[in-house]
Amino acid sequence: MYTIIVYDIGTERVTRVCHYLRRYMNWVQNSVFEGDLSVSQSKRIQNTLEELIDKGSDSIIIYTLQSKHALERQIIGQEKARTTNIL
Amino acid sequence: MYTIIVYDIGTERVTRVCHYLRRYMNWVQNSVFEGDLSVSQSKRIQNTLEELIDKGSDSIIIYTLQSKHALERQIIGQEKARTTNIL
Repeated sequence: MYTIIVYDIGTERVTRVCHYLRRYMNWVQNSVFEGDLSVSQSKRIQNTLEELIDKGSDSIIIYTLQSKHALERQIIGQEKARTTNIL
Repeated sequence: MYTIIVYDIGTERVTRVCHYLRRYMNWVQNSVFEGDLSVSQSKRIQNTLEELIDKGSDSIIIYTLQSKHALERQIIGQEKARTTNIL
């Protein structure tokens, strides 16, 4: 499943979240990751994120598509990280 | 077309970009907007964003889907802005 994760997380927790997501996904912009995940990976990531964040103040949105081909992606300005190999 | 816009923009320009996007889309999280746009709206927004940002340092990613039904959306932690009426 093609997945986009965007987050707004307190500075004291953001480094851990960022390091964790890098293990499975591609960093594409400040607070944005993309990646092709299996169902079990997606579930594991959701569970771990729930443990890593403060649910009372942090926010994570997970967008999931069955196929990355359903998505068009366009960049204006700088491409912070190249993902041409995955999209 | 269902559109998600994520941006990483210098603080001196971010307020103008945010105010502009609010006219057409829903703010859902820090630096993230969502909305259903016509082709002409989408084109106009892209053109305006190109004028508003510094292309040498700012970055905007525009994700477009033909239908919002192709997208699943899940929130962990706080829902910064409610969009249940649009998704």
